[in-house]
Amino acid sequence: MMMDLLEQIRAVVGDGGLITGDDVASRPADWLGRTTVEARAIVRPRSTQELSDVMRLCHAARQTVVPASGLTGLVRGQSSRPEDIQISFERMRAIETIDPVGRTITVQSGVPLQAVHEAVAGHGLIYGVDLGARGSCTVGGNISTNAGGNTVIRYGMTRDNVLGLEAVLADGTIISSMNTLLKNNTAYDLKQLFIGSEGTLGLVTRAVLRLHPAPASEATAIVAVDSFEQLTRFFTLAGARLGSLLRSFEVMWDSYYDLIGIQSGRHQPPIPSGHKLYVVIEVAGTDPQRDEALFTEMLGDALEQGILADAAIASSKAQRDAIWAIREDVEGQIHMMTPGIAFDISLPIAKMQDYVEGLKAGLQAACGADARMFVFGHIGDNNLHIVVSPRPWNDQSKQAAEEMVYRPLPTLGGAVSAEHGIGLDKRTWLALSRSPAELALMRQIKAALDPLDLLNRGKVLGGAA
Amino acid sequence: MMMDLLEQIRAVVGDGGLITGDDVASRPADWLGRTTVEARAIVRPRSTQELSDVMRLCHAARQTVVPASGLTGLVRGQSSRPEDIQISFERMRAIETIDPVGRTITVQSGVPLQAVHEAVAGHGLIYGVDLGARGSCTVGGNISTNAGGNTVIRYGMTRDNVLGLEAVLADGTIISSMNTLLKNNTAYDLKQLFIGSEGTLGLVTRAVLRLHPAPASEATAIVAVDSFEQLTRFFTLAGARLGSLLRSFEVMWDSYYDLIGIQSGRHQPPIPSGHKLYVVIEVAGTDPQRDEALFTEMLGDALEQGILADAAIASSKAQRDAIWAIREDVEGQIHMMTPGIAFDISLPIAKMQDYVEGLKAGLQAACGADARMFVFGHIGDNNLHIVVSPRPWNDQSKQAAEEMVYRPLPTLGGAVSAEHGIGLDKRTWLALSRSPAELALMRQIKAALDPLDLLNRGKVLGGAA
Repeated sequence: MMMDLLEQIRAVVGDGGLITGDDVASRPADWLGRTTVEARAIVRPRSTQELSDVMRLCHAARQTVVPASGLTGLVRGQSSRPEDIQISFERMRAIETIDPVGRTITVQSGVPLQAVHEAVAGHGLIYGVDLGARGSCTVGGNISTNAGGNTVIRYGMTRDNVLGLEAVLADGTIISSMNTLLKNNTAYDLKQLFIGSEGTLGLVTRAVLRLHPAPASEATAIVAVDSFEQLTRFFTLAGARLGSLLRSFEVMWDSYYDLIGIQSGRHQPPIPSGHKLYVVIEVAGTDPQRDEALFTEMLGDALEQGILADAAIASSKAQRDAIWAIREDVEGQIHMMTPGIAFDISLPIAKMQDYVEGLKAGLQAACGADARMFVFGHIGDNNLHIVVSPRPWNDQSKQAAEEMVYRPLPTLGGAVSAEHGIGLDKRTWLALSRSPAELALMRQIKAALDPLDLLNRGKVLGGAA
Repeated sequence: MMMDLLEQIRAVVGDGGLITGDDVASRPADWLGRTTVEARAIVRPRSTQELSDVMRLCHAARQTVVPASGLTGLVRGQSSRPEDIQISFERMRAIETIDPVGRTITVQSGVPLQAVHEAVAGHGLIYGVDLGARGSCTVGGNISTNAGGNTVIRYGMTRDNVLGLEAVLADGTIISSMNTLLKNNTAYDLKQLFIGSEGTLGLVTRAVLRLHPAPASEATAIVAVDSFEQLTRFFTLAGARLGSLLRSFEVMWDSYYDLIGIQSGRHQPPIPSGHKLYVVIEVAGTDPQRDEALFTEMLGDALEQGILADAAIASSKAQRDAIWAIREDVEGQIHMMTPGIAFDISLPIAKMQDYVEGLKAGLQAACGADARMFVFGHIGDNNLHIVVSPRPWNDQSKQAAEEMVYRPLPTLGGAVSAEHGIGLDKRTWLALSRSPAELALMRQIKAALDPLDLLNRGKVLGGAA
């Protein structure tokens, strides 16, 4: 039976499109290569039509599938079981068209994010989604998880940057909604179903992405403040003075800056330690001279008013890169905080500081002075990343840490996932952020689109399995 | 039977919440008051819970309902039949909270758009959705139709400005997704189902809207160009030089400007006639001096380079209002172009001019020199409004005009509705913009959420009735 299905699939995708047997386990299942793929087979379609044909066969055989791309997801949404078939988009990496007047790019979903940035740069355009994993993560993965990143405050999440997409449903039906228009109110906006649903409602195969004019000016600084109150004052001032020039407002708590920026020995700290919070602030606009002046004046005023304790403006690309290297140093984070649990939550800004202090106190109470944690995030869009290393490192302390992070969120108006999604890892916490009625409606949608529960079974809603 | 239902509803909403008998027909069914409501009753709930109770009763009685608010929709999405109950949101006009730090406002869905603008102004904030009907249209109507408007180029459509919402399903279930966070990837983004689905999937009762810092600078000009090529050059220049300062880029074809701006006698034309196209261009930023200089320099350069044939910068609020009055003169449009058919389509910018010329030629060929049309729209977001007055005015010529407007769109990558939606009026044309697979999936969604087809039956997808 199973051989039959695989041979049928081979007839669709060719020998190069099917990986079976020991070859499956030779491929990494996560971005760090710590685990290898468990699956009946890996199928690598080259086109929407091929994937449609594959899904038609899987549907007939009631075969579950798991989509996988850059493997940079952080909630095991891409993780497969021995009985699944993994769908890989690595042979769907075509950049199909770039429209410089309409400001769109049309790509297959396996295209890496960085390849999009590189492709549009020559046209004086940029794509508004950017994140540290840009070299590995793909457009399809970004869409499926509604990826956020470092410029959400200016350009929004992936959802806000997708004009059209094509997806294959569980039964092989192709839904082609390759809209290129900024405005299109022709009945239901079906693409929304596939954005952020983590491959559980359909498999995204192509997309039309919205582009923006490339900024002609760019300026970056790192600043330090001595209290959370000063941080919110600075955020308000920056918003009022810089308006839509403001592209990034990334905050690092002292715990993060001291550990990664200084103690790791991996960086040249642009500002000395000893402050409460550090902000990477970046503007991008159309007029280098004016924008830089506006930026410098705003920072000067903030220093003068005592809002900022310190500030360093990058005066070269190298200095800019050095600042971002601290914020984006995932290797350093792993190096300094293994074993650890990485959290991604969202909270109203006004609630952040008390929450962080409470978490620190709770962790110390539970695990003693050995417990470590650090916090950083995209304050402007409500998003905190927290890495916690409870001691001793065991299931009980890990569970306790999760409780401490997630339990306070509903009362504070927070959410258990800001940008990473739910995948496998946050399923048990999802009910803290969504009501029974909402979850029931989600299950109704899932049942309507994938009644056999073939697409990424068990992910997000827990599944029927 | 019917009396029973109405009496049950009366017990929920009180005497003041139920309008029956002759009183129903005394109420306007459209914004101009040209028609009056036909319906079994008008129900005016005061809260989500009341509406939920009403829908539970309607569901049990298989009673169809039609939501209605500001009645400014242009595709008869709010039109009811004698057998329907109209749900009016006129008693749900509470502005619940404004959060100046998190930059959100929470409102009931019957709040008029203009009331939102007024409520947030005192907090130094603005709401990014604005349109001519602001005094009458409501937040709930805006959400249900995914309203666009005059600042889409800067702030997006309504969809981009709604953080959370609450809706009542056909069976009375309350789906409360009152998210206040910019980032929240906790499973499916259910609010998307209710945005732009024109009341066919659920009835929106409350919403959390995203706010932006109010601009400190504002500058407006009207300019004239002598060809469509110059228009696109100007649009590119404005985008590159003004970046995200650009808030509006509204184009009027000569046919519109001459008729409404000049011949109607209703306006003081700020620029003389005789050009091909006219643009209302507006910037909004944080620094009055710098922004105005940037704007003036850009316009000066465009004049010097011969891109612009004429330009007039508003030097007072009165002058700004006079410019916008031409663009937003709906009364004048009706006065000068009755009888006429108002179209709302979207097209890639590159295709617009040929399309408009073709349409003009086609209309003249079909109706002779008496045929009249004018064109205006939001070029930057692909949106054209076209009003056509075919002669003689009869069903045949009206049908022919619709054919001429809609038929070319699929080939050109256009859509039959940019911002007005589908309602009743565009149902027969929807298939030009959406594939059979897309329409089938929409019907699946509708059947999953509203299996009895009680919500706005017959609208958008044609319905089961």
